This record gives sequence, C-alpha cells and structure tokens, in this order.
Amino acid sequence: MSGKFITFEGGEGTGKSTQLKLLADVLASRKISAVRTKEPGGTEIGLELRRLLCCGDKDKFDGVAEALLYFADRRIHLTQKIWPALRDGNWVLSDRFADSTMAYQYYGYNKKLPKQALENLYQIAVGDFRPDLTFILDIDPQIGLARSFAKAAGMEVKETRFESRQLEFHQNLRRGFLEIAAAEPDRCVVLNADKSIEALHREIVQTVAERLGWE
Amino acid sequence: MSGKFITFEGGEGTGKSTQLKLLADVLASRKISAVRTKEPGGTEIGLELRRLLCCGDKDKFDGVAEALLYFADRRIHLTQKIWPALRDGNWVLSDRFADSTMAYQYYGYNKKLPKQALENLYQIAVGDFRPDLTFILDIDPQIGLARSFAKAAGMEVKETRFESRQLEFHQNLRRGFLEIAAAEPDRCVVLNADKSIEALHREIVQTVAERLGWE
Repeated sequence: MSGKFITFEGGEGTGKSTQLKLLADVLASRKISAVRTKEPGGTEIGLELRRLLCCGDKDKFDGVAEALLYFADRRIHLTQKIWPALRDGNWVLSDRFADSTMAYQYYGYNKKLPKQALENLYQIAVGDFRPDLTFILDIDPQIGLARSFAKAAGMEVKETRFESRQLEFHQNLRRGFLEIAAAEPDRCVVLNADKSIEALHREIVQTVAERLGWE
Repeated sequence: MSGKFITFEGGEGTGKSTQLKLLADVLASRKISAVRTKEPGGTEIGLELRRLLCCGDKDKFDGVAEALLYFADRRIHLTQKIWPALRDGNWVLSDRFADSTMAYQYYGYNKKLPKQALENLYQIAVGDFRPDLTFILDIDPQIGLARSFAKAAGMEVKETRFESRQLEFHQNLRRGFLEIAAAEPDRCVVLNADKSIEALHREIVQTVAERLGWE
C-alpha cells in the first residue's frame, strides 16, 4: 500500500473533524490525493450502524455489544473504503479508528471488559494493519463536552449517546487515550487541543511533515 | 439459571421455526412457561441488524463483518432477553444460535476465516454459557432450498441473502452442522428433517423428555 493512513482520535469536542479537514486542504494544495472519512459510518452500511451506536439511550446495549458493532463497522470500512483507497495510492484521513474503541469501551467503562477481548477483536477485524500516524487530541473533558453539546444543539439528529454519560466516563477515556499513546509513541502523537484552531493546525502540519514527509 | 435453553439449528428450509412452535405448544400444555425467540433479530435492535444481515446483495460485506454483526445481535439477545428469561425460570426456545454462525461463516465460506476467530468471538459475546440442548435439523440442501424459496415467495420482505448463494455453500454448511454435532454429542441431536412435520415433532418431544425431562 503506497498511501498513508492518518487517524484523529480523542474525546468529545476536541476538534478532530475540523483539524482533519484543514489537513486535507494542505495535502490537496501539495497535490496529494486524500480521502476524508470517519468512524463509525464511513460507508453506506456503516451509517446505519452509526445511527444505532450514537443515538438513543446510553444503556440500550452493553460495552461488549458496542465493541462488536464498532468492529463490524470498521471491517466494512477497511474492506470497502480504506484499503482500496490506500492501494490506489491515496492518503486516508479518518476521524476516529480503533483507538476510540479501546478508549471508550475499555477505559471509558472502567475496564469492565477484558483488554484481551478488544485486542482479539482488533486481530479478527483489522489483522496486522495499523495507522501510519495517529493524532490524539487532548482536552479537559469539561471543556470538550461543552463544545460538543454546543455543536449538537444545531444538529437535526442528536448524536449524544456518549456525551450523555457522566464526567467520570469522559475522564476515564481521556486517561485511556494517553495510555494508548504512551504505549505506541512511534505511531501516536498527543497534542493539547485547548488552543486556537490555527495553532493546533500548524502543529499537525509540522508533525505530518516530520513523521511522514511530503511525497 | 433454572430454565432450559433449547436451540434449533440447520440450513435453509429445514422446518426449524415450525418445529419450535410445536414444541412450545407441548411445553405450554405441561404448564412450562417457554419464550420463543430467534436469531438474528430476537430483540428490537436485533431486528435492525437482521434486516442488514438477511436482505440485499450477498456480497455487501464479507464473512468477518457478518460474524461480528451476528455476535453483536447475539450479545444483545442474551443480555436483554435470553438470560433474563432463564433467570426467571422460563424455558427459552431459539430459532438459530451460535452454531449457525460457525456453520455459515466458517464452513459455508469454505473455512476462509480462522476457526479460532469465531471461537474467540463466542468467548467474548457468550462466555461459558451453552444451550442445554440443540436440535440440528438435517436435510439435502436442494430440498431445503426449494422449501425456503417457496416460503419467501409469499413474503413481503425477501430474506434471501443466504439462499442466493450457490449450492456448494449450502452443502458446506450442512457438513459443518454435522461436524459441530459430532464434536458435542452431549448437547447436539441430529434429526433427519426430510419427513412429515408430525413425525419430526414426535422425535423432538421424545428427545426433550429423554434429555431434559419434564419439570
């Protein structure tokens, strides 16, 4: 695969999708073809799973069912969109990927599921494939949630199933993302997201240039 | 758990749902409270997954995605319906359960996925729980498919995603069900389904009486 796969991870309201779009614009200006995508819901079938996962009552199913559904969405996303795009030489930028499942369904729920179960699911659905670079956008959950609810207020479909969980959940998952990053420093870069969009964007562009170079 | 969990397995058109209903009637006549259910789609959320899994183009996603979706449906089914019903002392009769995933997604697809992956998924979603008794209704796939297509012709929503696969797929999965039964004779009973509804029903009732007794 000749393209690069970059993922944006972090809690609610960290600005992942904004930063992803800004990076795609920079890549376009350098004539690098980049596919912008997201999880859950990077495919047509995935959008149906996204609705199941992100809307409705927070207790409509448990963390095991969630993890299975996220990995089903991910498998469809990989086979139908990410892998074909990379094989064709495109870069792929994804708003969330597997680190989110580990952060939300393992750390967020206070490690109620065995970590090995999530690692087995990764192996089944993704195999040995990994992102070339992962940005973990880090922010105090109280600030992030306020941003996220402000955004949801303007949307027709309220995707606030996870936002509706208590602050402790969001603090757990923040710690989770930082642990994930610490365990894989070659792949993950943690950036403080509590700054201006422009300042964060400059750090991201600089990191891509340093870590992956420009083609 | 004081209730008994009985599953009906087999290929297309083996008469599982008919036999399940007839057994439920016998249980009712003996004042045994029995819950009738099915996979996929034993719950409200599961019905949305059933539509994804059973309708549409056979190649809309691969066997790995299917297995993840089936086990997500199963996890929701267990936590919301099967386990609570058993805990309350009911018997539960399910039209398909995990043997179908092993038969269709492992044997049906000619063992393309590692068997260990499906065993890991079972452990993650179901744990050490097992049916008390499993009927494997066995029939020549050419006879079964003819029955199944005749039934689908009268239905508004055509759940023929798997029926549309070639005969070889159905022959593989028949062999799969027989291998599963041979490996777990304490749990599984294979019955020839190419006989009258009444004759098969009598064998099922006799097997339940012998294996599980009546309360």
